[in-house]
Amino acid sequence: MQQPFWLQGDESAHDVVLSSRYRLARNLPGQPFPGRSDWRSRVQVAALVERAVKHEFPHWKVLKGEELSPLIREVFFEKHLISAHLKDNPEGTLVILSPEARFAILVNEEDHLRFQFLLPGFQLAGAWRELLKVESRLERLLGFAFHEQYGYLTSCLTNVGTGLRVSVMLHLPALGVAGSLPATLNNWPDKGIEFRGMFGEGSSLGEGFVQLSNKVTLGSDIPTLNSRVLCSADELIALERRARTELVTHFTTKVTDSVHRALALLSEARLMSSAEATMHLSAVRLGACLGILPQFPVRYLLRLLVGMRPGHLQLQAGRFLEPHERDENRATFIRSQIRNLVEDKRDG
Amino acid sequence: MQQPFWLQGDESAHDVVLSSRYRLARNLPGQPFPGRSDWRSRVQVAALVERAVKHEFPHWKVLKGEELSPLIREVFFEKHLISAHLKDNPEGTLVILSPEARFAILVNEEDHLRFQFLLPGFQLAGAWRELLKVESRLERLLGFAFHEQYGYLTSCLTNVGTGLRVSVMLHLPALGVAGSLPATLNNWPDKGIEFRGMFGEGSSLGEGFVQLSNKVTLGSDIPTLNSRVLCSADELIALERRARTELVTHFTTKVTDSVHRALALLSEARLMSSAEATMHLSAVRLGACLGILPQFPVRYLLRLLVGMRPGHLQLQAGRFLEPHERDENRATFIRSQIRNLVEDKRDG
Repeated sequence: MQQPFWLQGDESAHDVVLSSRYRLARNLPGQPFPGRSDWRSRVQVAALVERAVKHEFPHWKVLKGEELSPLIREVFFEKHLISAHLKDNPEGTLVILSPEARFAILVNEEDHLRFQFLLPGFQLAGAWRELLKVESRLERLLGFAFHEQYGYLTSCLTNVGTGLRVSVMLHLPALGVAGSLPATLNNWPDKGIEFRGMFGEGSSLGEGFVQLSNKVTLGSDIPTLNSRVLCSADELIALERRARTELVTHFTTKVTDSVHRALALLSEARLMSSAEATMHLSAVRLGACLGILPQFPVRYLLRLLVGMRPGHLQLQAGRFLEPHERDENRATFIRSQIRNLVEDKRDG
Repeated sequence: MQQPFWLQGDESAHDVVLSSRYRLARNLPGQPFPGRSDWRSRVQVAALVERAVKHEFPHWKVLKGEELSPLIREVFFEKHLISAHLKDNPEGTLVILSPEARFAILVNEEDHLRFQFLLPGFQLAGAWRELLKVESRLERLLGFAFHEQYGYLTSCLTNVGTGLRVSVMLHLPALGVAGSLPATLNNWPDKGIEFRGMFGEGSSLGEGFVQLSNKVTLGSDIPTLNSRVLCSADELIALERRARTELVTHFTTKVTDSVHRALALLSEARLMSSAEATMHLSAVRLGACLGILPQFPVRYLLRLLVGMRPGHLQLQAGRFLEPHERDENRATFIRSQIRNLVEDKRDG
């Protein structure tokens, strides 16, 4: 499977930002929302959308959710191509992918259509325009449910309006180490901004993968929503960079020690849980950004972070793995990847 | 400083036994024990012993305890050449060393003379004969305090009789990991045997450095005492080897993981406490014995274990080091030693 576009790396603020993502919720008029619809209605919606997509984007892949194996759905979920909801409820859904999975359209998830636009690095400047182009080409054929006063209608109230959710995945290890991350996020001045974890909570260097997005989509237009997220992200990036400078200035040896320990364990362990690997990859990523590990291509670590998830490991193994087997396969996978990285650099 | 003989390594049961040691307490008649003597008496005793040693062993080095700097005393203590008592109370003492420090005679420590015979590996078979030869050559000149009923008289009652303490330093990591070590030692069938730690207590793989010795020296002769210690050591060695086989058979991946992690951290950390280093060196030593790290010369690790102690680090640095500086120097020392080891092997 080719790497999705968003996992291919980008230079824009890549020291702090892993990826940017847009999501647009749309529904067809005169059809019940997927959560309330019967089988026949879901099939009708899927057929309408498929026809429109094939007309506008003949090269895009249209996959039936229930024809994807649970393992492939898990892998798609880990690559952020589909939602947890679609992964667990594939009946009557479609997963539509543009080349390199820049765009993914989920059909009959919570809404009839969820457009996703996935980008590497920090790319919130005008990327929404590209998404809107895709959306409007389909809107011309399908016509989306729209209310003059509320805007686009969606199954969940928080999405009514623009139907847009803009999010960036941030890596904030220095704020995490400094211990100020929870307070910083809880007291964030813009109350229209929401924070979530990437892979659950941690407490050491592993802490610090944070997803920032807008909370509601109503009562605003797309450029305004976009710049609200952009502003908050900019501010957090600046805070994290300042915290990194502090860290390197006042705790040089401690940070260097932690980074080298993390890399040593990733390079040599024979068993490793997902939580431990996340923690060490976070430390190595920080080390690579700070120049402690200049041999490490920062962008590559994100692919490791995704590739070591249970679905990916099981796809690679070609079978179901018990948790202890996963820990063994994960350690082997990470070890070999890191060895390759180091050897690539040595040869190059 | 040349490595003492006991740190040069030996093949005898070196998978479990680090070193063997004999100690013989003797006193001159008609002189108060050092703990009760005045300065004049200590000077007299020291002069008598020095004259006798120079007569019998003209090549041995005679050092005045109070002329050794605190740092050198610390280093001697870490090399097990002098006792904690002499390290802290050097006034009026002598430290007499044979070539390679096979023998060390401490004068005016708790007793007028303490003969020490330090050997690498498991060498309890007949080594006491060699010690007695040294002792009797000095006894002919000095005459030691002896009571027909009690035997040799000593300042502490537990040493009266033969004045002999036989000890072996054991590495019992598999019993430590299995958790059975405390119970095994507490319920040891021979109540004449005593167990102590080498560098304090630990709780993971680091646990397992244990010193085994006879408890009292009265009411027995030297060959009997010696074989009592020998028997108990033999039994513990067998128990540890069985535990290692169990470990490797049932927890192969877990053990391999722990060993590689330990080596990775020793090879890459930039800060390391003495306790952490001991724990990792123990795991690496186990790995070397089990063939998980075939490149590691087992005997060498003992020298690392001694060389990373605070006195050695400060001697190398040429100055007093704060604890956090020691942790940094220790990590650097261990890292470079391990790199040398690996490179030596690669070149050879």
